[in-house]
Amino acid sequence: MLKVPKHQVAGHEAIGGNLGPLIDDSGRFYKPLQDGERGTKELAFYHSLSSDTRLPDRIRRFFPSFYGSQLLEASDGSGLRPHLVLQDLASNHLDPSILDVKMGSRTWYPEASDDYIQRCLDKDRTTTTVSLGFRISGLQIYGNKESGFWKPSRKDVRNFTVDNVRLVLRKFVSSNSPFDSNVTPDCCFAHSVYAGPAGILQQLLELKAWFEDQTIYHFSSSSLLILFDKESVWEGRTPFAEVKLIDFAHVEEGNGVIDHNFLGGLCSFIKFISEILTDLNESTTEARFAEPDKKCLCNAP
Amino acid sequence: MLKVPKHQVAGHEAIGGNLGPLIDDSGRFYKPLQDGERGTKELAFYHSLSSDTRLPDRIRRFFPSFYGSQLLEASDGSGLRPHLVLQDLASNHLDPSILDVKMGSRTWYPEASDDYIQRCLDKDRTTTTVSLGFRISGLQIYGNKESGFWKPSRKDVRNFTVDNVRLVLRKFVSSNSPFDSNVTPDCCFAHSVYAGPAGILQQLLELKAWFEDQTIYHFSSSSLLILFDKESVWEGRTPFAEVKLIDFAHVEEGNGVIDHNFLGGLCSFIKFISEILTDLNESTTEARFAEPDKKCLCNAP
Repeated sequence: MLKVPKHQVAGHEAIGGNLGPLIDDSGRFYKPLQDGERGTKELAFYHSLSSDTRLPDRIRRFFPSFYGSQLLEASDGSGLRPHLVLQDLASNHLDPSILDVKMGSRTWYPEASDDYIQRCLDKDRTTTTVSLGFRISGLQIYGNKESGFWKPSRKDVRNFTVDNVRLVLRKFVSSNSPFDSNVTPDCCFAHSVYAGPAGILQQLLELKAWFEDQTIYHFSSSSLLILFDKESVWEGRTPFAEVKLIDFAHVEEGNGVIDHNFLGGLCSFIKFISEILTDLNESTTEARFAEPDKKCLCNAP
Repeated sequence: MLKVPKHQVAGHEAIGGNLGPLIDDSGRFYKPLQDGERGTKELAFYHSLSSDTRLPDRIRRFFPSFYGSQLLEASDGSGLRPHLVLQDLASNHLDPSILDVKMGSRTWYPEASDDYIQRCLDKDRTTTTVSLGFRISGLQIYGNKESGFWKPSRKDVRNFTVDNVRLVLRKFVSSNSPFDSNVTPDCCFAHSVYAGPAGILQQLLELKAWFEDQTIYHFSSSSLLILFDKESVWEGRTPFAEVKLIDFAHVEEGNGVIDHNFLGGLCSFIKFISEILTDLNESTTEARFAEPDKKCLCNAP
């Protein structure tokens, strides 16, 4: 029984008669093949990824599992259409907070048409893509059982400034309400989600080391998907925080050159995450001196 | 007594009644202040650099020494004009081989006018700037006393492809003639110039570590200048190989964001240099097995 994904934060959605991805109960994600070259390219990329022995296992885990393609009834009622069968990344998570971060300071690839480049460039300049080397293209942040998810509209996300991005990356790991714009995020979960050997930062650094060396693929317009469950932190468990790479309709061959566009953006993103941890360490030290008996109450929702 | 620099490889030259930099015999380089904002910006940058305590000394050495500004007769006969008084980077070197590498996959800065951005973008797309994250904007490679320097024309340099760049970075550290396009560069000096604790690669890695962290400056359209003397290698001395940062007419404030544009290009450039060293190690190992008695004759010119 196929259904519309509950935790999709960016891209076309299979609602209101539109074409979009579907999921099943076994943890699979069915992404309709895009028209023309994009669909062919993404399918070819997943096939090449499965068979490419140059890809180390420690890097392979950053990509969704791929189970081939399948003809399925498209969600827009247009009939049978080939779908990529992928791992449903949200299915491992209970009420996941999710960030979709489109990487690179340009989202166009050099061989594209002038018209396509111009449209991408306009969007790159009016979002944080040019200034930060990445832009948030969608997100949801779990508040609690009553409030549910804070999920800003697409328009709001598109208008994110550098300061908004900085704030969102703090809200993402905070225990206080993501809905209230007057509340300063407490970054209570920053340590357990961003830091540590299984944390987001360590995963990003592993990806960075690979991008400094790999000349196989150039990932124009691909995203990092970042997921974690607040509930598991509240329950005192180590949060299952994941970084995944998604969206490969514009992957090009590297031809012996590293993907400096993705890498530059990744380094910029890493700097934002590192800064949150640095600020936290500094303020914790300050707090310890000022109020030595005060404890962090993050484990209580 | 001011004169035209002998070893300028890029930028406007003070010949034929044009405006360009001048040097003296004491090792100073007089760069005419560019008109309008560019000149003011570059001067302000050098002033801020001198006084900025956030700049570590290990990084400060990558910038030319700055001795203020001075009103001088401009080389185009237009009368008195303010000049930046800088260190003449070539004056420490005898017959230096020089590469001028303009860094970044875009040479425009986000606040520039649409017209300026379009012109830069056109050049970025037709050179290796977009594909490699850097482009060679000028070079000279010393052959020997008889042949002098190989210095391709500006037009030839502007038309460099990825393969040309790869070849030039090999020629730069080779003992055989840079003039002959049929000769495969022997990369005889690659180890002594690119590798080692004082080599080019190590200097680039130090710069990289700084760029991963610094959010003070964004260097649009700046260059790495790479210099070394072949003669000193032939004479059996450790070559004095230097990396310098130059051209700051478009430096912007970082505003808490790293210069991911420069950094991405720098990582790409580092990969090119690393690859030459890797290839060399592999071929040396192969050669040792094939012809164990053959020695490298690089010390003979």
